[in-house]
Amino acid sequence: MASSLFSRQLSLSLQKNLWLGAAGKSSSSNTGCRYVSKAAPKTQVEYDYDGPSMKTSVPGPRSKELTKQLGEIQNVAAVNFFCNYEESRGNYLVDVDGNRMLDIYSQISSIPIGYNHPALLKLMANPNNLSAFVNRPALGILPPENFPDKLTESLLSVAPSGMTRVQTMACGSCSNENAYKAMFIWYRNKERGHNTPSDEDLSTCMINKSPGCPDLSILSFMGGFHGRTIGALATTHSKAIHKLDVPSFDWPIAPFPRLQYPLEEFAKENAQEEARCLEEVEDLIIKWRQKGKPVAGIVIEPIQAEGGDNHATPNFFKSLRNIARKHGCAFHVDEVQTGGGSTGKFWAHEHWGMEDPADIVSFSKKLLTGGFYYKAELQAEKGYRIFNTWMGDPSKNLFLVEVLNVIRRERLLEEVTRSGKTLLNGLYELQTQYPGILSRARGQGTFCAIDVCDDETRDKILLKTRDKGVLLGGCGDRSIRFRPTLLFKEYHAHIFLNIFNDVLAQYK
Amino acid sequence: MASSLFSRQLSLSLQKNLWLGAAGKSSSSNTGCRYVSKAAPKTQVEYDYDGPSMKTSVPGPRSKELTKQLGEIQNVAAVNFFCNYEESRGNYLVDVDGNRMLDIYSQISSIPIGYNHPALLKLMANPNNLSAFVNRPALGILPPENFPDKLTESLLSVAPSGMTRVQTMACGSCSNENAYKAMFIWYRNKERGHNTPSDEDLSTCMINKSPGCPDLSILSFMGGFHGRTIGALATTHSKAIHKLDVPSFDWPIAPFPRLQYPLEEFAKENAQEEARCLEEVEDLIIKWRQKGKPVAGIVIEPIQAEGGDNHATPNFFKSLRNIARKHGCAFHVDEVQTGGGSTGKFWAHEHWGMEDPADIVSFSKKLLTGGFYYKAELQAEKGYRIFNTWMGDPSKNLFLVEVLNVIRRERLLEEVTRSGKTLLNGLYELQTQYPGILSRARGQGTFCAIDVCDDETRDKILLKTRDKGVLLGGCGDRSIRFRPTLLFKEYHAHIFLNIFNDVLAQYK
Repeated sequence: MASSLFSRQLSLSLQKNLWLGAAGKSSSSNTGCRYVSKAAPKTQVEYDYDGPSMKTSVPGPRSKELTKQLGEIQNVAAVNFFCNYEESRGNYLVDVDGNRMLDIYSQISSIPIGYNHPALLKLMANPNNLSAFVNRPALGILPPENFPDKLTESLLSVAPSGMTRVQTMACGSCSNENAYKAMFIWYRNKERGHNTPSDEDLSTCMINKSPGCPDLSILSFMGGFHGRTIGALATTHSKAIHKLDVPSFDWPIAPFPRLQYPLEEFAKENAQEEARCLEEVEDLIIKWRQKGKPVAGIVIEPIQAEGGDNHATPNFFKSLRNIARKHGCAFHVDEVQTGGGSTGKFWAHEHWGMEDPADIVSFSKKLLTGGFYYKAELQAEKGYRIFNTWMGDPSKNLFLVEVLNVIRRERLLEEVTRSGKTLLNGLYELQTQYPGILSRARGQGTFCAIDVCDDETRDKILLKTRDKGVLLGGCGDRSIRFRPTLLFKEYHAHIFLNIFNDVLAQYK
Repeated sequence: MASSLFSRQLSLSLQKNLWLGAAGKSSSSNTGCRYVSKAAPKTQVEYDYDGPSMKTSVPGPRSKELTKQLGEIQNVAAVNFFCNYEESRGNYLVDVDGNRMLDIYSQISSIPIGYNHPALLKLMANPNNLSAFVNRPALGILPPENFPDKLTESLLSVAPSGMTRVQTMACGSCSNENAYKAMFIWYRNKERGHNTPSDEDLSTCMINKSPGCPDLSILSFMGGFHGRTIGALATTHSKAIHKLDVPSFDWPIAPFPRLQYPLEEFAKENAQEEARCLEEVEDLIIKWRQKGKPVAGIVIEPIQAEGGDNHATPNFFKSLRNIARKHGCAFHVDEVQTGGGSTGKFWAHEHWGMEDPADIVSFSKKLLTGGFYYKAELQAEKGYRIFNTWMGDPSKNLFLVEVLNVIRRERLLEEVTRSGKTLLNGLYELQTQYPGILSRARGQGTFCAIDVCDDETRDKILLKTRDKGVLLGGCGDRSIRFRPTLLFKEYHAHIFLNIFNDVLAQYK
């Protein structure tokens, strides 16, 4: 029974669809060059659709009706539209009004290998897997028999350099929260010189007081995003709307380098800017130690994503790693958005070329489960310190095994590198063509972004592009971020670039 | 294909098993009375096993081997044993060494209708549901078409009195974190007199400073447990091991009444104790306002669970609700562990008999998804304030619809009330029989607990009972908590009481 959707889907993939018509329509307003799709290896995504197909503007009438209905139940101010996930395939998201969009946002970067991938549907059809879905265990006390093997096949098979330990969690935010706790525990044990808390530690912590609840801090960066629960939020500094009205901690916030792009053309200026930020980091560590709130850990994204796709060079991260080591702070790399392959390497920090890149690496989104890798010395010595009821979800590990198989089998990281180059070169061309509108094209793999002259124009362009069948997301003040699935090929980049070009032509 | 496990399971349920033998064995050390099972309505759980069946002590050799293997990957200090979830059924958890235990802990109270329930397996076999499992959406921006209907069929169909709005989340801890944020936002808007932040609010919040990140607080209770992420942890005060070494907030902590049981026998003493605690609550609210850290919300569990199954009377909660109203604090009832039916009502707060019991009610565990209900005025006016990538998981809502159908169809709340009475009466008998070991039996529905003379004896009793085929959990300093699934019948209580009696007899 479970296989009927699977076969229906495969047959659907054979139906050629309306893409040529849609492209013809959108090209009517085209004033720039057309990107011609090469004979790309479509076989690997043959269950995919061939292109966008739009029937209404978005949100269409059915989406509006459902938004009104959901609005009676919860806040819907962020809802874009409602989706028909059954009909969505590969890189294409279908909405409830029958619109089919090339999805370059992929559920805030959280869909690794597209919608309804056959490998994932096949997994669901295997009766041996059903139990993992209907019996969610308390993983920290009663794990299933295959749990160590599934961790080994999935998360450990892509462990960052120097790391052999991993703890799963439910989402990105609680992964970071627990990583911070691990760093605090590690730091306090270092301060004590041993692992045994004093009676005073034990009694004061129960009433939120020092030394049991110590005045330690996490150093974060302006523009960074690490989640929205209250601990993680204290290290998030991308947009006011996330932080407004929520109590927080007096923790140090360093400037993140504001580099000029393309990076290689501004190597000297960028190196100066990075040096300035690194100096500030050291100053803050010293200042907060003097304040009596020592920095237990430094947290940073390899590319600031939500904060506007801000890049820094491998040199910056290497120096920062050394500063952390020098001052005895743990170094936490947050790969919640950058991890999973979209930069062309499985982890963005691999681009730094370091053997010992971090003490903790957190993840979620494309990994389908949250969690964090950590060095052995960051492991709390007792149980129940890094703990909660579910501690992840083994059914997500099953999916992840399949996702990683597909990534390897189809060499998706190479594909991402290739299609990312096509995408970024297209963006470079467009910013030359539309210098009054676009600037600062940048990216690694398909993890690309470009700035628009102002936020109002950015938001309008996003809506117009969506109405023409391409779904994008914004980030920072006035950037557009590109977050396709790992199945995004060169010809998908061409489809996007043609449509984007048509939209931009209206502004010329 | 998916249905093969289902039919195999049904056939297994027809095999009569080793329970009579196991009972015979354990009764050899029996010195007290035997609880005789009535002709209970077994048909409703006919896929269940008939009793425990033990082959090794627990953990057995295979569990020890797997624990060692997992220990190379992560902290395993809290792991009890490894489970064979495929073979587990109803109230019985089977481990990897072939031991079958009556599970009265149910994955820290998070399994609503037992293992491998046919209704849940059937749901998995429906191809229309597959897409919800393989395409996890970013619910806050791109919900699936059936999302409003599924919320209506599931969570809204059991909404607490006076509440029509609900927000799903991934787990209990982040449900509480977001509930706190909702209360802070609501409180600040009340302080402002309008919803528009000042420029100073917007700029200061980005650097964690007041007034943007205001000095507001949440009042919690000593012994309370609300999760382990850093914000939730600031309101958790059950065990030092949870809080040690983690920075926290200077928020007020009130005493929770320490009542004498049975409650009705000590009505006068208990009323005095509750009055003392309520007075302290008011003092703390005033004191923290004077300190410049006003109490935005009060958070409390209807029964303190992790903290030791501490009860309070409906009068206490009614008065507390009034104090919150009087001082302009939001009132948040945390039903993460108490919710879902095990007290004999769907929500424990229903026992208070109030039309307007709370401003926010949070849940997780047995509801299979986290989240919180809230009054309309607690809804942030903008999007992205209460937000994260996933905001729950629609596949869990599908399961919840079925769970609620089973609860209604099989009148499980009535069953829980009945079997809970049997369980509690048995505990009363046992504490009379073993006054040197047991005391303070207490409970509502099957949500019961009993105290043991000291923690060492408690822990030994838990292990001995487990080796005889009953899985229990501890809570507080020296309590045993009973957290069976909603399928726990009177005859399950009898099986437990007989085995427990045998264990206790060794201590006489």
